[in-house]
Amino acid sequence: MPGFTQKFVSRKKDLQSLLCVGLDPDPSKIPAGYSPGPAGMLEFLTDVTVATAGEAVAYKPNLAFFEVMGSAGWDLFEKVIQTVRDHAPEALIIADAKRGDIGNTARFYARTFFETFDCDALTIAPFMGPDTIEPYLEYSSKGIIALCYTSNPGAASFLGYGEIPLYEKIAESVQEMNREHKNLWMVVGATKELHAISRIRCLAPDIPFLVPGIGAQGGDLAGILGSCGADLLINSSREILYAASHRDQVIEKSREKAGELVQSVRDICINAGIVL
Amino acid sequence: MPGFTQKFVSRKKDLQSLLCVGLDPDPSKIPAGYSPGPAGMLEFLTDVTVATAGEAVAYKPNLAFFEVMGSAGWDLFEKVIQTVRDHAPEALIIADAKRGDIGNTARFYARTFFETFDCDALTIAPFMGPDTIEPYLEYSSKGIIALCYTSNPGAASFLGYGEIPLYEKIAESVQEMNREHKNLWMVVGATKELHAISRIRCLAPDIPFLVPGIGAQGGDLAGILGSCGADLLINSSREILYAASHRDQVIEKSREKAGELVQSVRDICINAGIVL
Repeated sequence: MPGFTQKFVSRKKDLQSLLCVGLDPDPSKIPAGYSPGPAGMLEFLTDVTVATAGEAVAYKPNLAFFEVMGSAGWDLFEKVIQTVRDHAPEALIIADAKRGDIGNTARFYARTFFETFDCDALTIAPFMGPDTIEPYLEYSSKGIIALCYTSNPGAASFLGYGEIPLYEKIAESVQEMNREHKNLWMVVGATKELHAISRIRCLAPDIPFLVPGIGAQGGDLAGILGSCGADLLINSSREILYAASHRDQVIEKSREKAGELVQSVRDICINAGIVL
Repeated sequence: MPGFTQKFVSRKKDLQSLLCVGLDPDPSKIPAGYSPGPAGMLEFLTDVTVATAGEAVAYKPNLAFFEVMGSAGWDLFEKVIQTVRDHAPEALIIADAKRGDIGNTARFYARTFFETFDCDALTIAPFMGPDTIEPYLEYSSKGIIALCYTSNPGAASFLGYGEIPLYEKIAESVQEMNREHKNLWMVVGATKELHAISRIRCLAPDIPFLVPGIGAQGGDLAGILGSCGADLLINSSREILYAASHRDQVIEKSREKAGELVQSVRDICINAGIVL
């Protein structure tokens, strides 16, 4: 069975795209015209999936926006996975849950996202130590995406701590732990200083990156592609999800925004001689 | 409305106890004689609550063991909260979810555990930076329990990183951020070196600790009480939960184990002149 990274490489080539669409259904931002509650969220996220199925390598539902509704939210999460499988069958599904725990607890989190919900990948917070990563590795067909240096301004406080910053130490550990199963990725924010991103790329040459921070957060798309190459997923959430203010325009506007981002990536890659 | 820490102080005095009972319903360990599935887990956790209601200051359900069942697990989580409210109305409920994210996502996690489920406190992973703590602080009646130095062996790799270890930096930040709302706690593992625990206590004198690692993990109960005083919750999960192998004995055996731990704490405190 091809692993997560192989599926990524194959779909990236087919679509000539690095796009990951973040699915963050915030009730206060959902365009007018949808039903209220979880039913309307499913209609909305289905439209966004239909709009972007030809551009998106991956979809990344953010669990916070689901679990706030309790068990109804987890039912919605299951339905959203199904709607992505129906409308974009080759797309990868990344559960953005940033789970971080050890031993038996981590094994239960792995089982949740890889068995109960059969997602293709999960974001994890490895900061409690390498024993927070190990329990996931045996799922060799799944992607394990460890936070390394996140896009938020506060990331420098702890992840950038130390004479040699902590994110370098995390990158080295992840590179080392990836040897056997080849299913580890890392989150590296596009808003970080380019020298930091380049350094992480050098320390973890075999690890693809999931990159938040493009768009509203102001990350440097050309910079990250130039310093890291194309073993990346570039995440966009708000710009694509909330491109329209009314249901009638969601498919058109979301498709347009996704297309713009994909075209920017292609243009940068052609200019820089990067093969997608 | 009294805050989480005030409720803790009051119940600690009333019960002369520091006990927090971890509720980790692992299907492979639940004693024989209960119904299968979530219904049996509720029966089991109700028995454990009934058994320990006179000893437990707090209960700490671990979300991993619930969400593995999908929406049925979140229904169970809601029912477990209700059973604790019914059988131990003064006890505090700590959702052990170790959520760690920023901005809007963190606000949704806060809403999940403090509004949708009305827990008394939530464990959070603050490693992405101080902006992972801020969104929770406005819930001034709730407890926000930030991981600082966890009980697992691997914690030294990243949390102990740096000439001055990262956990010291986290402790300083938490102490500083606690000034206004006084609702921050930290997780400090009983398995850590006593000089590290004492140092954290010095850097964060106003922050109570949630302490895992006593029991199976071999943490030093007398050491942590001696170096930190009694602004602590001492967690025990497996030893109390799985004290019996059959349903018929759960109430008796769990009560016995809880009583033993509470008595150990009282004895140490009396010998060391620590006021509970």
